[in-house]
Amino acid sequence: MEQDIETLEAPDRSQAILGAVQSSDAELLTEILDPLSHSEALRELLTLHVDDRSRVLELVPAEMAAILIEEAPNEVAVELVEMLESNRAAEILEELDSDIQADVIGELDDADAEAILNEMDEEDADDVRRLAQYDDNTAGGLMMVEMLRFLDTDTVGKVLRWVASDDEEFERYRGQHPYVVNEEGRPVGVVSLRGLLTAKRSALLPTIMVEPLTVPVDMPLPDLEDVFDKHPFLGIPVVDETGILVGVVSRTAVSDAVLERSETESLKRQGLVGDELRSMPLWLRSRRRLAWLSANIVLNVVAASVISAYEETLAAVIALAVFLPMVSDMSGCSGNQAVGVTMRELSLGLVRPMDAMRVWMKEVSVGLINGVALGLLIGIVAWIWKGNPALGLVIGSALALNTVLAVSIGGVVPLLLKRLGQDPAAASGPLLTTITDMAGFFFVLSFASLMMPWLV
Amino acid sequence: MEQDIETLEAPDRSQAILGAVQSSDAELLTEILDPLSHSEALRELLTLHVDDRSRVLELVPAEMAAILIEEAPNEVAVELVEMLESNRAAEILEELDSDIQADVIGELDDADAEAILNEMDEEDADDVRRLAQYDDNTAGGLMMVEMLRFLDTDTVGKVLRWVASDDEEFERYRGQHPYVVNEEGRPVGVVSLRGLLTAKRSALLPTIMVEPLTVPVDMPLPDLEDVFDKHPFLGIPVVDETGILVGVVSRTAVSDAVLERSETESLKRQGLVGDELRSMPLWLRSRRRLAWLSANIVLNVVAASVISAYEETLAAVIALAVFLPMVSDMSGCSGNQAVGVTMRELSLGLVRPMDAMRVWMKEVSVGLINGVALGLLIGIVAWIWKGNPALGLVIGSALALNTVLAVSIGGVVPLLLKRLGQDPAAASGPLLTTITDMAGFFFVLSFASLMMPWLV
Repeated sequence: MEQDIETLEAPDRSQAILGAVQSSDAELLTEILDPLSHSEALRELLTLHVDDRSRVLELVPAEMAAILIEEAPNEVAVELVEMLESNRAAEILEELDSDIQADVIGELDDADAEAILNEMDEEDADDVRRLAQYDDNTAGGLMMVEMLRFLDTDTVGKVLRWVASDDEEFERYRGQHPYVVNEEGRPVGVVSLRGLLTAKRSALLPTIMVEPLTVPVDMPLPDLEDVFDKHPFLGIPVVDETGILVGVVSRTAVSDAVLERSETESLKRQGLVGDELRSMPLWLRSRRRLAWLSANIVLNVVAASVISAYEETLAAVIALAVFLPMVSDMSGCSGNQAVGVTMRELSLGLVRPMDAMRVWMKEVSVGLINGVALGLLIGIVAWIWKGNPALGLVIGSALALNTVLAVSIGGVVPLLLKRLGQDPAAASGPLLTTITDMAGFFFVLSFASLMMPWLV
Repeated sequence: MEQDIETLEAPDRSQAILGAVQSSDAELLTEILDPLSHSEALRELLTLHVDDRSRVLELVPAEMAAILIEEAPNEVAVELVEMLESNRAAEILEELDSDIQADVIGELDDADAEAILNEMDEEDADDVRRLAQYDDNTAGGLMMVEMLRFLDTDTVGKVLRWVASDDEEFERYRGQHPYVVNEEGRPVGVVSLRGLLTAKRSALLPTIMVEPLTVPVDMPLPDLEDVFDKHPFLGIPVVDETGILVGVVSRTAVSDAVLERSETESLKRQGLVGDELRSMPLWLRSRRRLAWLSANIVLNVVAASVISAYEETLAAVIALAVFLPMVSDMSGCSGNQAVGVTMRELSLGLVRPMDAMRVWMKEVSVGLINGVALGLLIGIVAWIWKGNPALGLVIGSALALNTVLAVSIGGVVPLLLKRLGQDPAAASGPLLTTITDMAGFFFVLSFASLMMPWLV
């Protein structure tokens, strides 16, 4: 049986899962999901109808349900939890680390959150309430409160006994070093594995501990990246405003947050606000996309008004209408390449808002080369296609000029937005294309009206 | 002095660095760079002129130079190493872990690579040669050969003595567990910290070890993600085709590779092949961008030919020319949103190429809602702006129809490309916009020619 299930092909598997859910066969369901990778299991869950999803989370062991919640992107995790009875939700969340508990519960509306917290272990609930207050991408938002904390009056033997006592529990702390705090709870030292192994069991921790590295709860993600870059530690203790040890932020939590940020940014660039997944409700998905698109229409109208202003020119030389979209599209692409490089250099910390001037000069040179190349290319195409050299000259020089403009704006705009405290990922693209569209249309049509005698 | 340097403002700091380089003041240079975060230090390095960069790497201690190489994106690291004398390059690379050595040396042309390898420690050089053969995003390409390997004839005491012996060296292995191999070098067990602490020093490792989890050298990145998802380990031993233990792949190496992949993909979407940084040579940057842009021009010409075919219609109703770019731009945006969601679901493993049909249906529904909404919006704009309801009808229905088409294509195209073994990140965008441009122009202009009596 086990065998058969393990070797099920994806389609049959989905069928088997559906069957198990409808017959509420918890055992079979668990048996099918258990061998899957977490992402496979989540995919199976999300391909089910919404009601069946909650049935699955009700049926499988809390531990497995917790794994699915943890694997899901935060927005999906929240939806899944919202569908559950608060006591079941609490049971499942208890299986997760405090940082993930806080992420999920922090997104729920207060009523749901409180209902679940009341069902949870008092102590855990308090931890979550505290953690939920911190901003997502800060040490406080990323830390977990489970930690290897000992007193400066404890002995090496006590630590060793604790480690030896409970492997299961110890898993949670893997990568952490034992941290030593004084009676006020301030971190005074950290103990290395080497120290533990070499010292006498009767030795007090202060005799083998070294100065601890700590970070403040409000340290933002980029600074945390730098700290983990610079130090090999897998976890770093976090202290609150008063210097009390309140948690530990792990290297994994930070790198996960960095990945999340980079993906969210590349989505925002397509005008996808929030992390859309097709498992989300239709109306939510379409509303979110529309919000950005309808703003975009307005910008398009602004740009198009330039064309409208030159209708006589167009009427005289209809061929121009063929090239207007080309010029605006090509310039948009060139500009977006520059935006892409700047966004990457920003995320790598290789460029700062104050570097706008340097970036601009670097882009202008690329713009000049590419502008000339593309201008020549499209100019020749226009000339041959429409058999009119003047037309080629108009289109070619317009694209060349607009390419230089596009890469200059594209390279610099994210830096300016950042300096103005705006989000460069979301706003750079639309801002760029509107300006380059307007400029592109203007160059083509104004050049054309100057060259009119040779065009008609 | 120390004090002053630490508190230098960025601009003065860059000046101070430049000064130190030109006066070859290695000590001062080290003193300035040391307190900086790795990304700050790298940024300072990359803002220098190319020749000065190599001067810096010559002057500072090999360890610091190694940190800068490691912090730099792979392409930049390679450039930096290429500028160095092979013996200095070897000296610096010796400071890095074998996986990073292999990444850098693997990118060099064979002559340079051999020159450096000959200067390196024989054993390390062999490791690098072996590692360089594996594909980047496989267990072999991501693993390091430094590992805690012991024989099944060793005792607990031997492991403890080793751990205690050399802290410095031990750092490299942090997160790893001691792996136990038999005389053929096949992994037969892994030893937990708890086991080490609780067992007698005289005990043989087999008495406390547990079944090891291993992965094959050729396991691809997505599978590695799944494995690390499913197991809490910070490192997993890697075995070759013959089952011999050849290295350890760390959780950090895998998550770094995932981040790298997601950023490379979002860059490819803007037509940025390879990881461009502004510190790269002008010609390289412009050539790479042009390659994609000139292909894009061809696609634009194809799309524009549709307009060209309808020049009489345009001549009759010039106002149409005002809306052509709007329709193509708006449809392009809608389609790219769908591409964005599919790309994300692909990277999260939530969708597979075979799911094209499901994705398509999910997109069509969004497309219908958004198409109607945007169509109405632009239709009313056109009507009011040009005072012609028929024009509004033509433009509005064209955009509505094209939006449905765009999201359908955008949602499915990455999956089809993937199934065809193509790279969805690079090809989806251009493919999508070309089709939606052509369709958009066609809808507008063909509807117009049908409605001609009411338009003029």
